[in-house]
Amino acid sequence: MSSGYILVTGGAGFVGSHSLIELINAGNSVVVIDNFVNANHETMMKIEEICGTKITNYSIDITNKSALHDLFSKHKFTSVIHTAGLKVIGESCDVPLLYYRVNVCGTINLIEVMKEHNVKNLIFSSSASVYGSPEYLPLDENHRTGRGVKPYGKTKQCMEELFKDLCKAEQGWNIIILRYFNVAGAHQSGKIGDNTQGPPAYLIAYCAQVAAGKRSEVVIYGNDFDTHDGTAVRDYVHVVDLAYAHVLAQKQLEKECGLRIYNIGSGKCHSVLDMINAMSKSSGKQVKYRIADRRPEDIGSFYCTPDLALEELGWKATKGLNEMCDDLWRWQSRNTDSSPVS
Amino acid sequence: MSSGYILVTGGAGFVGSHSLIELINAGNSVVVIDNFVNANHETMMKIEEICGTKITNYSIDITNKSALHDLFSKHKFTSVIHTAGLKVIGESCDVPLLYYRVNVCGTINLIEVMKEHNVKNLIFSSSASVYGSPEYLPLDENHRTGRGVKPYGKTKQCMEELFKDLCKAEQGWNIIILRYFNVAGAHQSGKIGDNTQGPPAYLIAYCAQVAAGKRSEVVIYGNDFDTHDGTAVRDYVHVVDLAYAHVLAQKQLEKECGLRIYNIGSGKCHSVLDMINAMSKSSGKQVKYRIADRRPEDIGSFYCTPDLALEELGWKATKGLNEMCDDLWRWQSRNTDSSPVS
Repeated sequence: MSSGYILVTGGAGFVGSHSLIELINAGNSVVVIDNFVNANHETMMKIEEICGTKITNYSIDITNKSALHDLFSKHKFTSVIHTAGLKVIGESCDVPLLYYRVNVCGTINLIEVMKEHNVKNLIFSSSASVYGSPEYLPLDENHRTGRGVKPYGKTKQCMEELFKDLCKAEQGWNIIILRYFNVAGAHQSGKIGDNTQGPPAYLIAYCAQVAAGKRSEVVIYGNDFDTHDGTAVRDYVHVVDLAYAHVLAQKQLEKECGLRIYNIGSGKCHSVLDMINAMSKSSGKQVKYRIADRRPEDIGSFYCTPDLALEELGWKATKGLNEMCDDLWRWQSRNTDSSPVS
Repeated sequence: MSSGYILVTGGAGFVGSHSLIELINAGNSVVVIDNFVNANHETMMKIEEICGTKITNYSIDITNKSALHDLFSKHKFTSVIHTAGLKVIGESCDVPLLYYRVNVCGTINLIEVMKEHNVKNLIFSSSASVYGSPEYLPLDENHRTGRGVKPYGKTKQCMEELFKDLCKAEQGWNIIILRYFNVAGAHQSGKIGDNTQGPPAYLIAYCAQVAAGKRSEVVIYGNDFDTHDGTAVRDYVHVVDLAYAHVLAQKQLEKECGLRIYNIGSGKCHSVLDMINAMSKSSGKQVKYRIADRRPEDIGSFYCTPDLALEELGWKATKGLNEMCDDLWRWQSRNTDSSPVS
C-alpha cells in the first residue's frame, strides 16, 4: 500500500478503470484524470459503486500542460500510472499526427510536470506493438523493437526511448514500462468494460458484438498461417489480471527499481477460431464468421514469455480464455443495445 | 526559384544561416524564425550584408505554437525548411527531456500549424546519427536506423517516422529528409560560421579553437581503429555544399516528390589526424593533440554513399578538406578572441 496518492491518467478508460479497482482494493489512494473522450463519467460512478468509495477525478486532457501543473500544485502525488492515450492501431495509420500529439507530446507534458514537482515514479502503459514483426518467439523483453511498427506502436516506442534516456541522465527516476499484449475480458461484476468509441479495436470485443447481434459477422483474415488451426494466434490477457500488474508494479516502484520493462501477457496462444468458439460458448450464440484473404503485413503468431514479470513482480495471468469470454459477455449483454451497426 | 515565401526555421543557426545565403542567391524569397539561443542577431545582419538584401526575421521559438500560428496567419508560405532544433549529441544525453521537448514537440507544433494553413512542403534537417552503429559501409538510405542511437538521434528518428506515417496517411505532403553527415567549414566570406554556445560539438571546430589558442589540445580517443592511420574516420561535408542541398531539395519539392530521404555527405573518409594536419596547415599553427583510450561505443568508421542525392537532386559535395579548414580558419581567426577556455 502506497503512503501517498497515486495519479492515474486515463483512469476512466479500459485499462485505467480496471486498474483503479485493483489499486483501491489493495488499499491505495488514487486521483484520476481523464479527458472522457473514450470513457464516460458513468464509469467513474460504477467504479465507486464496486469499490464502495468516492474517487477524486478531474476532466483533464494530458495535452493541456497548464491543467497538469494546476493538478500537481493541488495534490501531492507519490507516483503516476500513465494509461491515458490513443490506442487504436488502425486509426493511428489514418491520423498519425493526432497520435503523436496525444501519446508523445501529452506524455512529455506529463513528465515535465512530474519533474517540476519532483514526482519521479511512473508506471507506463506501453504495448507489445513496439516489437513489430517478431524475429523469434516467444517474445522476451530484449527482442528488438521498431521494425514494421505502426504509428500507435511508434508513439509508445518513442516514449520508451525517452524513459531510457531520462533514467540514464537523471538520478531518482523509477519507471516501469508494461508492454501489454492483447487485453481482453471485462470486470467480473459486469459493470465496467471497454467503452472505446467506434468499432472494437480488439477481436474478442468484436466477437462479443457479433454474439450480441450488434455486428453481422467476424471476418477472419487468413486461415493458412502456420498455427494449430491455420488462423492467427495471439497472446490474450484478462484485463483484471493486467490491472493487477499495476498494483505489483506500484510495489516495485517503492523499492526504487530504476527503469524496468515487463511483458504483460499470458504466454499462451489462442487463435481467432479459438476465440470465436469460446465466445459462442460463453454467449450461448453461434458467432458467425467468414474467411477472407490475409492482409499484407498480417502476422501469424505473436506471443510472449511473461517470465520476467513473474520473477521480478510476482505477476502472472490467472484467468483463461473462458473466463475472459464469460466476463466480457456478462458486460456486453448488460451494456449494449443490440441495434446492428454493420 | 520558388514563387512564394520559404520559411526557414533556425535561420540564424549554423546550417540555417548558410542555407539562407544559398537560397537567396538562387533567387528565393525567405522569412526566418529563430529563438536566438544558439545564434545571434548579428548573424542576420551579416547575412544581409553578404546577400545585399533585407531579410524578414522573427524571434520565435518552435515550442511556442501560438506564435507559429500568428506567423502563418501573417505570411503565406509555399514551403518550410526546418533546421531549428537542439543538436549537440553529448548534451542530449545530459538533458534528454529538453531535446524531446524542442526537437519532437517543437516539430509537431510546426507540422500541425503547417497542416492548418495548408502548407505541405517541408525540408527537414535530420542527421546521420539516426543510423547508430553501422551494420555495413558506406551507409545508404536503406540502412536500418535506431540501434545504439543517442537521444539527439532518437529525436530526429522519431520525427522521420512521423513524416513517413504522415505521407502515407494524408495526400499532398512533400517531405524531404536530409541526413547530414559531419558538417564542417564556414562561409568563404569569413563573416559567418558556427556560433553554437559551449565547447564545439564538431571535431573540426575544436581543432580550429586549439589553433586559435582558445583550447589547449585535441584529445584523440583511440588510435587503434581499423582505419588508414588508426584514428576514427568520418564523412565531412562543407557547410556551403550542404546549404546548397537545400536549394536543390526546394526544387525537388516543387515536383511534388512525396517523401524522400537523402544522405548529405561527401562519401569520403577523413581521420582525426587528417583533420588535425589540415587545420595545422590552414592556420599555420601546429594543432596540439594527445592520444587517449577509446571511449565505449566509439565507432571507428562512419561514412555514406551520397549517390541518391546526386541521382535525384543533382547534388554532390564539391569542397574538400583543405577548403573546409581554410574557410573555417578564416572565420575562426576573425571572430574569436583567443582567451583560453580549457
